[in-house]
Amino acid sequence: MWTIIVIIIFSVIAYFITDNLIPKLKDLFINAGLYGVDLCKISKEKIPEAIGVVSGCVFLVTIFLFIPIVFGNNLIDTRLFPHNEFAELLAALLSICCMLLLGFADDVLDLRWKYKLLLPTVASLPLLVVYYVNFNSTTIIVPVPLRHFLGSSVNIGFLYYVYMGMLAVFCTNAINILAGINGLEVGQSVIIAMSIIIFDILELGGEQQKAHTFSLHIMIPYLATTLALLKHNWYPSKVFIGDTFCYVSGMTFAVVAILVISYHSMSKTSSSQILCRD
Amino acid sequence: MWTIIVIIIFSVIAYFITDNLIPKLKDLFINAGLYGVDLCKISKEKIPEAIGVVSGCVFLVTIFLFIPIVFGNNLIDTRLFPHNEFAELLAALLSICCMLLLGFADDVLDLRWKYKLLLPTVASLPLLVVYYVNFNSTTIIVPVPLRHFLGSSVNIGFLYYVYMGMLAVFCTNAINILAGINGLEVGQSVIIAMSIIIFDILELGGEQQKAHTFSLHIMIPYLATTLALLKHNWYPSKVFIGDTFCYVSGMTFAVVAILVISYHSMSKTSSSQILCRD
Repeated sequence: MWTIIVIIIFSVIAYFITDNLIPKLKDLFINAGLYGVDLCKISKEKIPEAIGVVSGCVFLVTIFLFIPIVFGNNLIDTRLFPHNEFAELLAALLSICCMLLLGFADDVLDLRWKYKLLLPTVASLPLLVVYYVNFNSTTIIVPVPLRHFLGSSVNIGFLYYVYMGMLAVFCTNAINILAGINGLEVGQSVIIAMSIIIFDILELGGEQQKAHTFSLHIMIPYLATTLALLKHNWYPSKVFIGDTFCYVSGMTFAVVAILVISYHSMSKTSSSQILCRD
Repeated sequence: MWTIIVIIIFSVIAYFITDNLIPKLKDLFINAGLYGVDLCKISKEKIPEAIGVVSGCVFLVTIFLFIPIVFGNNLIDTRLFPHNEFAELLAALLSICCMLLLGFADDVLDLRWKYKLLLPTVASLPLLVVYYVNFNSTTIIVPVPLRHFLGSSVNIGFLYYVYMGMLAVFCTNAINILAGINGLEVGQSVIIAMSIIIFDILELGGEQQKAHTFSLHIMIPYLATTLALLKHNWYPSKVFIGDTFCYVSGMTFAVVAILVISYHSMSKTSSSQILCRD
């Protein structure tokens, strides 16, 4: 519980750092040729592009600095260290970091669509291995109209991993597709993040406390850095966020979804598995 | 042992992919304004800059695809899964991925030196947590002239982590500093990588087989992608590698050094710790 208070303090600091860095680094982006012109405005001034990389980096650094704190208690007696939870967090960070890189490369180089489809799937691979090792529940709940034919749940096996790999591609592009209106991409991400945080807080007292604490550790700094970005991207936009932000946001949501929902599905559909493991 | 054969096959494929991608992506970099002019040549043609990001990405993707194979045996019975080794690999990849991002951002944006000093240290943080949890040997061997005063070994405690954090900064800048002569940065990296691989192979029969296998899993794909880069960066250079390559190389060497040497130091200086853990 106290780790959530610490991450809130970290996130408040991260908000102010992001808010402070964005205006400072604007010229760096414009000088590098990373700028656009707002087509819906009369003024034709240069607006820096791909500023999502600033909020993304602050977001990652915040979680990096938070690692020794969240695992602090376990560092005293390293024999009890929860290697699997640590690997989960590392896999999540690795996937997000890959998308930050891919997004920034896309903003700078204008990558072709085949790389954009392939790379998020590859970036989610470490996460899928973590999922396989820690949960490996590939059972899906069948929608009501189809239950007559298929039963209430079906184990789709390997296809579940294909689905999760594609979830990463879907999430990243789902946010990207809203580009064009000042603040819309960032605004919807803030709303999604807030709804996840509210859900996590409501579920904190439940049996999946660990999963929702994990989710909060990622979503709170994400929300803080995104709010700072929204302040500058709000109409009239002083910065553009670029594909970088969309990719990072999409992957962050995908990562949290895969890891948190898996805790839930594990507890509901494969309790026998847990008993077997314990 | 068979994992080494697999990684060699993967690496040969990675070599050809990198070799094939570099000429294809050259125009993308020049169009994005990422190019330089070779000051020591008469021809003033535009030479693409920051191509290290191509070899770096292929290197990372190769290891990503290799993860399910190297941990394949353990995936059959997930209860025996070596979470600590998996976390080591993830932390190593995370640090390398961060440096790939930082290097590319530096090439595009020309970051100020304070970010260049701060960010590699932060990027090595997950690795230091892994080191703390799995090894935590902070004893150094004292150089012979000083042994009279300090004894043969000294436990420097927290300072050891400061030293390792700075090792990441040192390694990245040590390679960067050789810029200016066609093929020199990549050439020396190839020689360093080869010497590490030869050392690993010689030590494969020894008691630290696991550590050296880990090192080979990282160094072989690194060498393959770097050789492909060297082919294009060799005099007269058709591509420049940028800070991206230097940062990735430096971090790769630092990561391998920290994780492999730590196995050795653990076995030599703190065997009591292992006994206690077993």
